[in-house]
Amino acid sequence: MKALYLKERKQPVVYADFDDPQAKEGEVIVEVKAAALNHRDVYITQDLYPGITTPMILGSDGVGTLDGKEVILNPGEGWKDNPAYAPLNYTILGLPKFGTFAEKIAINADRVHEKPAHLSWQEAAALPLAGVTAYRALFTRGQINANKKVLITGIGGGVALTALQLAVAVGSEVWVTSGSNEKIEKAMALGAKGGANYKEDNWHKDLAGRAGVFDLVIDSAGGDGFAQLLKVCNFGANIVTYGGTRGKVNGLSPQIIFWKQLNIMGSTMGNDQEFADLLAFVAEKKVKPVIDAVFSLEEGAKAFERMDQGLQFGKIVLDVNI
Amino acid sequence: MKALYLKERKQPVVYADFDDPQAKEGEVIVEVKAAALNHRDVYITQDLYPGITTPMILGSDGVGTLDGKEVILNPGEGWKDNPAYAPLNYTILGLPKFGTFAEKIAINADRVHEKPAHLSWQEAAALPLAGVTAYRALFTRGQINANKKVLITGIGGGVALTALQLAVAVGSEVWVTSGSNEKIEKAMALGAKGGANYKEDNWHKDLAGRAGVFDLVIDSAGGDGFAQLLKVCNFGANIVTYGGTRGKVNGLSPQIIFWKQLNIMGSTMGNDQEFADLLAFVAEKKVKPVIDAVFSLEEGAKAFERMDQGLQFGKIVLDVNI
Repeated sequence: MKALYLKERKQPVVYADFDDPQAKEGEVIVEVKAAALNHRDVYITQDLYPGITTPMILGSDGVGTLDGKEVILNPGEGWKDNPAYAPLNYTILGLPKFGTFAEKIAINADRVHEKPAHLSWQEAAALPLAGVTAYRALFTRGQINANKKVLITGIGGGVALTALQLAVAVGSEVWVTSGSNEKIEKAMALGAKGGANYKEDNWHKDLAGRAGVFDLVIDSAGGDGFAQLLKVCNFGANIVTYGGTRGKVNGLSPQIIFWKQLNIMGSTMGNDQEFADLLAFVAEKKVKPVIDAVFSLEEGAKAFERMDQGLQFGKIVLDVNI
Repeated sequence: MKALYLKERKQPVVYADFDDPQAKEGEVIVEVKAAALNHRDVYITQDLYPGITTPMILGSDGVGTLDGKEVILNPGEGWKDNPAYAPLNYTILGLPKFGTFAEKIAINADRVHEKPAHLSWQEAAALPLAGVTAYRALFTRGQINANKKVLITGIGGGVALTALQLAVAVGSEVWVTSGSNEKIEKAMALGAKGGANYKEDNWHKDLAGRAGVFDLVIDSAGGDGFAQLLKVCNFGANIVTYGGTRGKVNGLSPQIIFWKQLNIMGSTMGNDQEFADLLAFVAEKKVKPVIDAVFSLEEGAKAFERMDQGLQFGKIVLDVNI
């Protein structure tokens, strides 16, 4: 079969022939129709991930066919339903097990779910890892409901955009931040009520003046802007962090945290129950993931370059059929 | 009657005659037997609190008699049972309403509870505000149970010590930090398994080496040491902060927060349900608050000086009968 894989560490992925997967006990072979990139895949090519081995077929997100049925793959394995945290043996497709950037994948049969019928192959491929991460951050951790006002920072990435779409589907009032006014406008087209450009001085005061205070904040930046987020929070607010692209958090006021009785909660990926709940919610609300760009598997290295540039708005998809 | 009160802002408290309180509708007059200091009282004399008016009888903690019954006073008012946060009209005895540092106090009848029978007047006076703050931090926010390993930082203050005693009574393994080895030893005499002196380099590594990782951390310091606390946390740990004596938190790693799926939770005071639960727990487990020093009401200004020096180990009590 053809696969997009890491041949040597610290090298770009290569598109080449690869041995067909063999199903071990409990596994099935899924014919992959489409896959999607996550930052995790790029970090692995940059050697910024623990436990890298080669050759490694990357890719956590995938959809395809199994015995003629249209299926979507749960990228996580080993984390059943503990709402607090993942066990140490929890793994994600695409390291250490071979991933979805190939024509075929061997995967445990209980990882295979029915594809939401309202989604195309490309749309469905964009859902799994970003979707379950957003679902856990919003629902399990953030305790979202329609009465909560939600702020999603750094809109544009896959998790942030899926969180925006899920929160809008819940019926919450959602605001966003970005360093790009264009991305804020695109987010508003997806249902955000408004946004603020964090490159502007006093953006948090401006935002609070227009939006009021927030009951739930979803952040993946950290850094020096994080302390400002606390200032736009309501009493008892949940601030869920699932990333730290801007580095360490400084200048955090304990007084604001205890006086407002805030909750700063870390969240990463999601468990089997959350993945099943995500699929049901997306099907019920007819949520369609936002696709930034589509590449063929053969041109997959270009997809990695695009994600590394950080300009995307939505998921970068690999279509195996083009 | 005699009272210890703030006559003018930014001045020490004075001991002098004061008009007897008059009970308004719904209020009763309690004859105060003993009271206790909190940092709040000292901050008010230093003008470090909002909404100060004079003259003001200070004091949040008090016990006494009502119609011959021995009673303990709930210092909070207006916060019934919302587990998330206090309403905006929540107040504490001793500002804006006259407090417990007097021979008599007018108080709403529903603030009056039966004094735990196993406690002396002085011990009971040491319980209310520190107790309800520690109870909420440990139970409602921290979700303590006997299987959780607990770390309490800055042992010596009233809340930290009460938290230590309550956690030991739960059956948890409890460790402490302090800048004083003597305080660590005293904490061990109260049931702590061990401790670490945060003035020593790499105290957190030393502590983790001896104690392992913690499921629940109770902190009131904040500051640069806070980031180290995350490193000694188990996956899914709760870090409850109820103070910020060392100022803003710097160098906090978002990666540790999301990877370990930590919860950093602000907590302050406690509601009526938590106060009632505290009294029941203390009575059942026969917990006795630690008393640092006892002063007469007349010598109350010396009690304020002692608290301001920060050398105490336990509560500073004012006994109205001596």
